[in-house]
Amino acid sequence: MLQSSKLNDLVCMLNKIVIFGVGLIGGSVASALKQTAHPPFIVGVGRHQTSLDQALALGLIDQVETDIASAIKDTDLVLIATPVAQTQSVLKSIKPYLTEHTVITDAGSTKSDVMADADAILGAFKSQFVGGHPIAGAEKSGPEAAFAELYVGKNIILTPEDHTSHSAIQTVTALWQACGGLISCMSAQTHDRIFAAVSHLPHLLAFALVDNLSKRPNADLLFKFAASGFRDFTRIAGSHPEMWRDIALANQAALLEELDSYQQAIMTLSDLLKLSDAEGLYQLFKHASLARTDWAKTKSE
Amino acid sequence: MLQSSKLNDLVCMLNKIVIFGVGLIGGSVASALKQTAHPPFIVGVGRHQTSLDQALALGLIDQVETDIASAIKDTDLVLIATPVAQTQSVLKSIKPYLTEHTVITDAGSTKSDVMADADAILGAFKSQFVGGHPIAGAEKSGPEAAFAELYVGKNIILTPEDHTSHSAIQTVTALWQACGGLISCMSAQTHDRIFAAVSHLPHLLAFALVDNLSKRPNADLLFKFAASGFRDFTRIAGSHPEMWRDIALANQAALLEELDSYQQAIMTLSDLLKLSDAEGLYQLFKHASLARTDWAKTKSE
Repeated sequence: MLQSSKLNDLVCMLNKIVIFGVGLIGGSVASALKQTAHPPFIVGVGRHQTSLDQALALGLIDQVETDIASAIKDTDLVLIATPVAQTQSVLKSIKPYLTEHTVITDAGSTKSDVMADADAILGAFKSQFVGGHPIAGAEKSGPEAAFAELYVGKNIILTPEDHTSHSAIQTVTALWQACGGLISCMSAQTHDRIFAAVSHLPHLLAFALVDNLSKRPNADLLFKFAASGFRDFTRIAGSHPEMWRDIALANQAALLEELDSYQQAIMTLSDLLKLSDAEGLYQLFKHASLARTDWAKTKSE
Repeated sequence: MLQSSKLNDLVCMLNKIVIFGVGLIGGSVASALKQTAHPPFIVGVGRHQTSLDQALALGLIDQVETDIASAIKDTDLVLIATPVAQTQSVLKSIKPYLTEHTVITDAGSTKSDVMADADAILGAFKSQFVGGHPIAGAEKSGPEAAFAELYVGKNIILTPEDHTSHSAIQTVTALWQACGGLISCMSAQTHDRIFAAVSHLPHLLAFALVDNLSKRPNADLLFKFAASGFRDFTRIAGSHPEMWRDIALANQAALLEELDSYQQAIMTLSDLLKLSDAEGLYQLFKHASLARTDWAKTKSE
């Protein structure tokens, strides 16, 4: 309870925040903040008037603003929760209106590119930018999909740099803790290498499998008999193509290393199978199966 | 209703059946048959006394039998639902007691190896063997996991050969239709090529990813931040290592072809990424995403 009220104290220092993109990610932050003891005034900005109107109607935000100058005026914190390809233009659009009190953060899936953009665009204000990546999502998108509990118990990664202001890090930490998130700090490079391995690579592998099978002359027959294993393995191949194009390109170097490493792993497996190495296959499957089972226990799936 | 009562007529021609392996697969067949109008007398045979006792206590089977001669005597149908590596020894053990009226079938995940074993072992009785593969499963195993509805609406593949008796095919078709299954017939080779692509390959790919990541010095960090995409993609890496070693070896040729084809697919994707070919990546992801979404609609997941 003590910690909880301290969080509310921290968050209540935010009188006004601006959220660019009021979909699942930004809308859920808004929804969580609205449940704190002293919710800030929340302004929504975005490309889609319908989404903004919905967010307003749902009570996620207090105001829709199309004029960036008015939106940013007297704002304590700007959260960029748009698709990552728009981060650069949002940073450029807000730059003229920032003051030394405005903290800026984002929720993008890649971080090296965002940190480089912030450094290049924000000038003296770059110390007030704290990169962020909430490891949370849901099947649905848009403001109607937003909910206050999305981030409860979920990892939130922040990627401050040496020049980042300590108070900006504290503000962004408090923001996510108020949403129930668990904060980890690391470099943008470390972040991008981790997510190349555990997220971006699996997405590309799933896309590659479905693309490969769907282009075969007997694709209909294959899909007819594909069952639950295929369903789980390929679920992420149903993801948004534009978003994943942007993520792949933004994390190109780390992802190419992962693809190389995975090709080696497939080669090893192929060789074991070619040699009918029953013991080698068994050991590899057993090691993977134990590791997967242990991992699942930590995630209480 | 007409069709349903016809099915019951067919199944009620079975007075006695023997099931080798009374776990999820065999137990669920037993459970479904017990719900038909005229259930057969069901004898359970297996390596694990505990499982057999449980199946008896649950009412899935009517009798546990350790003597193969007694089990097979006057039996209309033998269902082999053991792990696939035991099929050969089960066929050898029942061979001396078969009559020209005994129909034999199995539920193994690979079919070319089973058909070859049946041809080699059963002699004149090979025409009474109909290979089968129910495309159904569940997270749990053992007789307690068995349930009558496991096969309702699920694909059941039969792999009869030119020499297979028409009445044996009819009997096995009736068996699975009584369980609610949807029957497809194809050659064992076609079956194995299809399942190499849509099931065996994904399993190996998931095993390979988890094995690769779990052996890295920073494995703990990687697993800490792995989230729902990783969870779905790698769920099948938690599968039974012994079973998958056997499946991989049993379907070696088709699976090696699939691994080759997939390596080409990964190479194509890597090249697009190396060249920063945004349009090429987008088209590949979009094609896969649409195919996956269309597929999911047909499976009403």
